[in-house]
Amino acid sequence: MVEVEKLKSVLRKTKSVGHSRYENSAEHSWHVSLMALLLKDHADDEIDINRVIKMLLIHDLGEIEAGDTIIYASETTEIKQQEGQGIRKLFALLPAKMEDEFNSLWLEFEAGETNDAKFAKAIDRVPPLLHNIHGEGHSWKLHNISKEKVFSLNKARIQGASHTLWEEVETELNKAVEAGALS
Amino acid sequence: MVEVEKLKSVLRKTKSVGHSRYENSAEHSWHVSLMALLLKDHADDEIDINRVIKMLLIHDLGEIEAGDTIIYASETTEIKQQEGQGIRKLFALLPAKMEDEFNSLWLEFEAGETNDAKFAKAIDRVPPLLHNIHGEGHSWKLHNISKEKVFSLNKARIQGASHTLWEEVETELNKAVEAGALS
Repeated sequence: MVEVEKLKSVLRKTKSVGHSRYENSAEHSWHVSLMALLLKDHADDEIDINRVIKMLLIHDLGEIEAGDTIIYASETTEIKQQEGQGIRKLFALLPAKMEDEFNSLWLEFEAGETNDAKFAKAIDRVPPLLHNIHGEGHSWKLHNISKEKVFSLNKARIQGASHTLWEEVETELNKAVEAGALS
Repeated sequence: MVEVEKLKSVLRKTKSVGHSRYENSAEHSWHVSLMALLLKDHADDEIDINRVIKMLLIHDLGEIEAGDTIIYASETTEIKQQEGQGIRKLFALLPAKMEDEFNSLWLEFEAGETNDAKFAKAIDRVPPLLHNIHGEGHSWKLHNISKEKVFSLNKARIQGASHTLWEEVETELNKAVEAGALS
């Protein structure tokens, strides 16, 4: 209970809507868990929302060891290994049966191949887009992220789990382009 | 998705372990949701952990309107009304069926009578205790909270849902008394 508090000081790359500080990975984990619950009926494939929420509650715990990485960076093998090590170290604190269950769930999320993992990963993508859309593209501009990159990477991930969700996001992204937040 | 971001700026009354700033209600909501999942097998009564997690994901959303209140304060009817109004206003943004479901779930949590609500409320109590235990009783001292009040209020709530959890918490609280963090 104490160990995971460290996730509250892992800073992400965007500022939440209405906030001047960077978001941390703990509050982000809450946000996406709740969002998955609200948007569950828009998944294209059959999902088990309870498993999706569990994945999202734990999905960033590897960052306690490795830190947060912007999704547009090609994630190095080294960072992925650090996250995996961090997760295993953390879950080793749990009773054996629970340790196995949580390690599997995290690996399933990372692989992103099952319906549950695909939906969880799609939801995970949306808040940073909204932060940029409502925040003058602050993180896109800072990290020199092109319009092409934003559309292609997110379309693949989000549309792969929910066409409805991607349609909505695409509309908002187009407005951001018009407003000069993304170029 | 954007509206609930406001919970990230509702500050609570304790500082997380290892942090010099006050915790916000969004990261707290993540913490207790994850903790419920880890501690589910220690509930005295039969619970549905998926409902417990849903309750904990939404339990503090009324604070967007009303702000956070220390649990040792006698909560005024006015604050409770504000929270209830805030919740209804927020959930009115949802599709009707979901609005009803979430309103019911929040009311069930608030009433604290079902097994699921009792367990959720017990879990909700633990982090602020750990923050004080590991943080020289900072919030107990600032708000002049007595040892008697800490033990009696939390015993009732936590032991009422999990004897095992209360035993562990009691041991830690006794250490805090010995260390002079609580008097």
